[in-house]
Amino acid sequence: MNKKTGTHPIYSGLKENCGVFGIFGHRDSARLTYLGLYALQHRGQESAGIAVSDGNHIKSYKNMGLVGDVFAGDILKKLQGKLAIGHVRYSTTGSSSLKNAQPFVIDYSKGSIAIAHNGNLVNSQYLRNKLEKSGSIFQTTMDSEIILHLFVKSKKKSFEQKIIHALSQLKGAYSIVLLTEDRIIAARDSYGFRPLCLGKINGSYCVASETCAFDLINSKYIRDIEPGEVLFIDKNGIRSRKLSTKTRHSFCIFEYIYFSRPDSNIFGNNVYLARKRMGRQLAGECPVEADIVVPIPDSGMYAALGYAEESRIPFEIGVIRNHYIGRTFIQPSQFVRDIGVKVKLNPVRELMHNKRIVIIEDSIVRGTTSKKRIRALREAGAKEVHMRVSCPPHRYPCFYGIDFPTKKELIANNRTMQEICKFIGLDSIGYLSIEGLLDSMPLAGNKFCTACFTGNYPLKIKGKISKHSLEKKL
Amino acid sequence: MNKKTGTHPIYSGLKENCGVFGIFGHRDSARLTYLGLYALQHRGQESAGIAVSDGNHIKSYKNMGLVGDVFAGDILKKLQGKLAIGHVRYSTTGSSSLKNAQPFVIDYSKGSIAIAHNGNLVNSQYLRNKLEKSGSIFQTTMDSEIILHLFVKSKKKSFEQKIIHALSQLKGAYSIVLLTEDRIIAARDSYGFRPLCLGKINGSYCVASETCAFDLINSKYIRDIEPGEVLFIDKNGIRSRKLSTKTRHSFCIFEYIYFSRPDSNIFGNNVYLARKRMGRQLAGECPVEADIVVPIPDSGMYAALGYAEESRIPFEIGVIRNHYIGRTFIQPSQFVRDIGVKVKLNPVRELMHNKRIVIIEDSIVRGTTSKKRIRALREAGAKEVHMRVSCPPHRYPCFYGIDFPTKKELIANNRTMQEICKFIGLDSIGYLSIEGLLDSMPLAGNKFCTACFTGNYPLKIKGKISKHSLEKKL
Amino acid sequence: MNKKTGTHPIYSGLKENCGVFGIFGHRDSARLTYLGLYALQHRGQESAGIAVSDGNHIKSYKNMGLVGDVFAGDILKKLQGKLAIGHVRYSTTGSSSLKNAQPFVIDYSKGSIAIAHNGNLVNSQYLRNKLEKSGSIFQTTMDSEIILHLFVKSKKKSFEQKIIHALSQLKGAYSIVLLTEDRIIAARDSYGFRPLCLGKINGSYCVASETCAFDLINSKYIRDIEPGEVLFIDKNGIRSRKLSTKTRHSFCIFEYIYFSRPDSNIFGNNVYLARKRMGRQLAGECPVEADIVVPIPDSGMYAALGYAEESRIPFEIGVIRNHYIGRTFIQPSQFVRDIGVKVKLNPVRELMHNKRIVIIEDSIVRGTTSKKRIRALREAGAKEVHMRVSCPPHRYPCFYGIDFPTKKELIANNRTMQEICKFIGLDSIGYLSIEGLLDSMPLAGNKFCTACFTGNYPLKIKGKISKHSLEKKL
Amino acid sequence: MNKKTGTHPIYSGLKENCGVFGIFGHRDSARLTYLGLYALQHRGQESAGIAVSDGNHIKSYKNMGLVGDVFAGDILKKLQGKLAIGHVRYSTTGSSSLKNAQPFVIDYSKGSIAIAHNGNLVNSQYLRNKLEKSGSIFQTTMDSEIILHLFVKSKKKSFEQKIIHALSQLKGAYSIVLLTEDRIIAARDSYGFRPLCLGKINGSYCVASETCAFDLINSKYIRDIEPGEVLFIDKNGIRSRKLSTKTRHSFCIFEYIYFSRPDSNIFGNNVYLARKRMGRQLAGECPVEADIVVPIPDSGMYAALGYAEESRIPFEIGVIRNHYIGRTFIQPSQFVRDIGVKVKLNPVRELMHNKRIVIIEDSIVRGTTSKKRIRALREAGAKEVHMRVSCPPHRYPCFYGIDFPTKKELIANNRTMQEICKFIGLDSIGYLSIEGLLDSMPLAGNKFCTACFTGNYPLKIKGKISKHSLEKKL
Repeated sequence: MNKKTGTHPIYSGLKENCGVFGIFGHRDSARLTYLGLYALQHRGQESAGIAVSDGNHIKSYKNMGLVGDVFAGDILKKLQGKLAIGHVRYSTTGSSSLKNAQPFVIDYSKGSIAIAHNGNLVNSQYLRNKLEKSGSIFQTTMDSEIILHLFVKSKKKSFEQKIIHALSQLKGAYSIVLLTEDRIIAARDSYGFRPLCLGKINGSYCVASETCAFDLINSKYIRDIEPGEVLFIDKNGIRSRKLSTKTRHSFCIFEYIYFSRPDSNIFGNNVYLARKRMGRQLAGECPVEADIVVPIPDSGMYAALGYAEESRIPFEIGVIRNHYIGRTFIQPSQFVRDIGVKVKLNPVRELMHNKRIVIIEDSIVRGTTSKKRIRALREAGAKEVHMRVSCPPHRYPCFYGIDFPTKKELIANNRTMQEICKFIGLDSIGYLSIEGLLDSMPLAGNKFCTACFTGNYPLKIKGKISKHSLEKKL
Repeated sequence: MNKKTGTHPIYSGLKENCGVFGIFGHRDSARLTYLGLYALQHRGQESAGIAVSDGNHIKSYKNMGLVGDVFAGDILKKLQGKLAIGHVRYSTTGSSSLKNAQPFVIDYSKGSIAIAHNGNLVNSQYLRNKLEKSGSIFQTTMDSEIILHLFVKSKKKSFEQKIIHALSQLKGAYSIVLLTEDRIIAARDSYGFRPLCLGKINGSYCVASETCAFDLINSKYIRDIEPGEVLFIDKNGIRSRKLSTKTRHSFCIFEYIYFSRPDSNIFGNNVYLARKRMGRQLAGECPVEADIVVPIPDSGMYAALGYAEESRIPFEIGVIRNHYIGRTFIQPSQFVRDIGVKVKLNPVRELMHNKRIVIIEDSIVRGTTSKKRIRALREAGAKEVHMRVSCPPHRYPCFYGIDFPTKKELIANNRTMQEICKFIGLDSIGYLSIEGLLDSMPLAGNKFCTACFTGNYPLKIKGKISKHSLEKKL
Repeated sequence: MNKKTGTHPIYSGLKENCGVFGIFGHRDSARLTYLGLYALQHRGQESAGIAVSDGNHIKSYKNMGLVGDVFAGDILKKLQGKLAIGHVRYSTTGSSSLKNAQPFVIDYSKGSIAIAHNGNLVNSQYLRNKLEKSGSIFQTTMDSEIILHLFVKSKKKSFEQKIIHALSQLKGAYSIVLLTEDRIIAARDSYGFRPLCLGKINGSYCVASETCAFDLINSKYIRDIEPGEVLFIDKNGIRSRKLSTKTRHSFCIFEYIYFSRPDSNIFGNNVYLARKRMGRQLAGECPVEADIVVPIPDSGMYAALGYAEESRIPFEIGVIRNHYIGRTFIQPSQFVRDIGVKVKLNPVRELMHNKRIVIIEDSIVRGTTSKKRIRALREAGAKEVHMRVSCPPHRYPCFYGIDFPTKKELIANNRTMQEICKFIGLDSIGYLSIEGLLDSMPLAGNKFCTACFTGNYPLKIKGKISKHSLEKKL
Repeated sequence: MNKKTGTHPIYSGLKENCGVFGIFGHRDSARLTYLGLYALQHRGQESAGIAVSDGNHIKSYKNMGLVGDVFAGDILKKLQGKLAIGHVRYSTTGSSSLKNAQPFVIDYSKGSIAIAHNGNLVNSQYLRNKLEKSGSIFQTTMDSEIILHLFVKSKKKSFEQKIIHALSQLKGAYSIVLLTEDRIIAARDSYGFRPLCLGKINGSYCVASETCAFDLINSKYIRDIEPGEVLFIDKNGIRSRKLSTKTRHSFCIFEYIYFSRPDSNIFGNNVYLARKRMGRQLAGECPVEADIVVPIPDSGMYAALGYAEESRIPFEIGVIRNHYIGRTFIQPSQFVRDIGVKVKLNPVRELMHNKRIVIIEDSIVRGTTSKKRIRALREAGAKEVHMRVSCPPHRYPCFYGIDFPTKKELIANNRTMQEICKFIGLDSIGYLSIEGLLDSMPLAGNKFCTACFTGNYPLKIKGKISKHSLEKKL
């Protein structure tokens, strides 16, 4: 639709990946999945879908758009059954068409199976080539299709063995939920890149990317699905199996920095508190004389609170977010500069006037948006503008499910601090150190993947991945 | 559409009224108006419209929906001309159909004229009856149609005299902009209920409900249109005329409490700072022993900051807003209680646990939403929950443009503090006093209309107004 | 929408005008009106609307599009009441926006009134100027708005006198139905340009532009509303009044030639039989040696049957109509010539091959479409192509409701028969004579308006009308 | 959408199957395919799609709806390439969802391949089971998916051998076009059930279900693709291969009776002329004394012309078709009987009155629609109504691509002529004999499949097919 109207959606620079949800044994499983997806909407706004089983057949519905819009009308009423899985998506690999929306459902010799996937495989090209050579055909560019092919082709005897055999061949990041006619399966790669939690509501087990989904449906958090763990949930209860691959905790640290909702617990710990600790740490590492601490809403809010508390500089919400920006925004002609950024965020002139400002950002990617925002602060009268960033400089791409821009586009990749400072138009800039970041974490530092800052990839990519290599279809 | 899909939009309890914008003499007038409306979107989300003149003819476009959606595609390109007015609407009188969207454009003997209106007349029924008796016919239920009839029927000789004659017959609240082929007019009732500001961009005058519209287009704020003032802007410049009716400043205090954007200046002063002062005052008037101060986002943020600073209790953003709630939300079946409120706002469990919380609300209307929110806080583990409200108890309806519920529905109308406290489920409640509120204002207290708190209406209503009396058409 | 998608609808060269329907006293009045409009859809495909009264209030719904699409869903269910009027529209004056869709409903001092109008006034500019001078304001460019202003402004005492007073001021063509809370009115100008029939179903009176509407709802045709007659239908029954203006029958002969459905009776007589007589007459006047008679479907079918019977040349449906052309068609690039015309009509190659063809057209307007069709026939192998047209050459514009192109565009206006023949690419051409046309009619020749052929206008136009003069709004 | 709005489309009783088109080597291949599909629209109105190759990649677009609507806007511009295939669909097997729209495109080890299929396999369940057992997974319920699986799994070495190997395993009706990055393939089953023609335009080869597609794009018909023939078209020209299976001509006789457009040639001969011969034959076999011969438009037109010529009873188009019935029609409440049928077809009262009518139908399926039509004729005044049907009684289901109702629903299956006559409300009925039908054909009788009349199926079905057995997904 964007192409037709010539408009473009206003999204932030960083694309989030995906959110998954699943529930077994609740008569209102589709509605609860719908609510779960609502709570996980921040993880993907391009498409939404639900697959439900009534014990005999799987029905599914998915479409482009936000959860509330996709399931407007009486679609949910048609999704009757006691077990369901759901998905919200922002594309990483795979183009953004409806065809690539999830859950992905197929028929095979024993029945039907549906999958919802968060993450990104690094050996997908290898597996796909291998499968194609053995006669498989592909209709989409999704990792999910590969996973189901591996499952169906497995020579193992039992259903559980087939699942484990299929997953054992995957390399990369995956937190997945699967649905058959009579069970759901939840699995997480042995690195644990992406989060996946287990909850319980009225005796029914449910799984979700973040605990905020449990809060919304009044479900109780039980524990995380472990890295390398596969949970089979059916009428006989819950069984945990382990992948044979060696477990090496490599939790995505960016989930704490930016992705997850602050009210969520992920990897067993709260996001809000972690962000505040980053802010405190940042204040210790990069102090500055200033009159007020101002967050870039909303993601910079929590680190800014920490920074303000530690530095004892007053906290002010000096930049106001417009909550009604709609789905589209027509860029006006060139004569009005920087309109785009101010449509979303506007500084409070009275707070800026003649003040020394510390702006707290959760991260800087390209720097172009920051540049415009800083200019707006100065036009509003700020005397000095200092930026403090609650994570280290971002220098390397992510192969595990986050859609960062290419290395070349990353502002920190090829610039000194001074150059960044000048490019954005700041009086000073300060990033949180990698050590400071890890110190702020609720878990031991060696449990995290920090590849986007350090380039130390816990898992090497097999063959050159190209986000666009598979996207030859409209 | 709602009726078709069986869904309902999620709006807050208080409906905002309308926003207006106008600009004279800029070759990109329609685009600037579009941007101005974008900034004023919080004042009305039901419909949006723009009328533009190329010097000879007036063209207009309006539709139901947000500004960005209404003007998606290339509609703006067709609205060529150097002068324009625009409107965003939430209905007060007049049903919410497209027919009642604004600007409202008519032809008469001398040409065409368009109007955009924020406010509510109290003698509209009287004027309409009188006009109908004299042969006027009506196609809508809007005050705007009445105003244009009065203008066209005026026997005064000059255009300016006709306008002033028409406005002199109005009783009630109106901040309006008018557009003819070759001029715009901006006028404000002699009580000045609703705001209206004058700005300048590249030598072109513009007017807007709030200054945040000027910020977005890099326009400079000049001054407010005065109560009882009529500004005529054409190629000869700007001329100010006064209505003969006596001026009595009665600025809507609720614009400071809730309606206007915090980054706006209205009635000549900043909203953010006023709200922080209310919070400080509230902390002085209604102290409480507690562990953290938590705002209801986003409108409670600023008073909460003030409260925290004054009370020295730590400020925490303990309730998280979901930014992706979409246009519709299907209410799940009854077994999941209070879902609706948690879809929008979710408490951070870790912050609540075993804590004494001071919740800051900007206002309480019916109390039913607050009740659900407090229950969610308790379920998240809060030990004590105290509510502090940054305005006095709300007891009387507004006849000047705010769509409060009926007196009977207002929680404070017929309940003691103790009863309210119990109804909502609080450990304690405290409202800002009327004196404290007025002390927090940047202007003298007698300049405000406080009728919704005190029942002292600056202007009596003529005949019984019924919001629904005119809404007999589909 | 067309402008957005860059496509254009496929319509025939001649635009039809409007269709009206009304019914009093049936509990299913809106549904019957819907069905009546369905049958009258050929008279206007741009917009459709229904207004219904439940005895106290008038509700209405109208939108752009075909009747079936406008009233899809459950809109009809909301239109409850025992009396209703409806309208389908192709614009003649007034631009094609929703604002100009009908029925047009207004409020005035005594209640509400709705109008549906087929025809075109010739003194609308004069009346509008006069009304504007007396203080009326206009929101549309429709004649209907003028009529209601005249009604409301009438100083006559009774409702009936007001209606008659208003209609007496109109000059031009109008077949109208009006709806108030408790009655419907049907009126026809004193020339009777456009048809209007009275029917009865289960004791309820109904009116319609053509009798095919009665057939669909199993209503019985009673008689025509007479030229200059005004029928008032309410709970007391039906009352006929006459306008004081002199009656002069000037039935639009083009209704018989092209507009009306062949299964309809208009002006008291059947259309199908009239068209066959034209074809017989044409065969007598313009014989030709040929192998087959081929109609241009569907409008040329009936004259072709007559021509074939009279000439004893075999009738073949040698050009096939594609019934699935949809609402839009994207013109392919220039390399494929004449595609547009063949999408709709394709010759049967086997019938054409080496044959001498007589093509029967009901009329030729610009000749450009005919030119392409004839080329297609020749490419399909026709040896000779002779065209016979079942009406005289079309040379003058219509001011009474038919949207012919301008005089300059009419092929017959400035060309000899030979030139036309050559332009279209024919072996010979023959038009029915005006005398022959009149002889074929079921009524005396002096009862018809033949101005588009002869230039003898029964009613002169007051002031210069310009179709586009009023269309200054978007 | 139908389910949402509560409306249903008006389709005739007999569902048509599918239409295919393909072209190689034309720079405007997508546009020509679009036009070809436009001409084939009568073969399927539920979905439309085009796949195009630019030599390296295949792009495709498909959606629910008519060709013109699916490809509205600028979608065609994005489908650049010199080779393309297209499809219009009415479902036979496979539910009517977007997922089952065609062309169906997949990736496999050597690249991509797209397929468009007209027909129905009788061993699809067998092949699917076999494929699933060997590890194939299915995302749709279409035969097309099976065909591509067989192709990809073939162990044959060359591309051509693989194609032929795959097709050799199919039993049933298929006229298919395939597209790879650099060639198109056209194939027809060895029975030749469904038509498929080869044409040439500007040196480029094209294929289509019927020649009317060639007419529209000014392409020249060359010959039919033979039963059992596979054509490979690439930059080296055209190569014909034969399937090893024995050829047995079994052309679908219903294509001549009803499906194909009268202006098309299929199986090498013209449809219009065949239908006229059926009508002549019918007049000889089943004469009747009557005043006029009246066709049920449009499909009965041509047989009626033949009947009238042979019987010398005058031909009249006594039943008029409404061309503007839109996509939806809301069934009115029960009090108005038979409205549905009259919305589409209305008798001309003046022609019916007191006349003896011979109604010509191309076929009768359930008889319920005929019953209503005959009642309408009688209500319009017909004295006698005799029906003559231009094919034999329809008694058996079709397994080769036509969606007849079940045997039980077919009126002729379990009724004598007298019973049918009474059920429909006729004075007499007469069907064309099977011998008469075959005599009217342009080819020898033994070249046709007449199973729906005789029950003699040229090819037995393997396993019980159930149209709904695969449709378990939403």
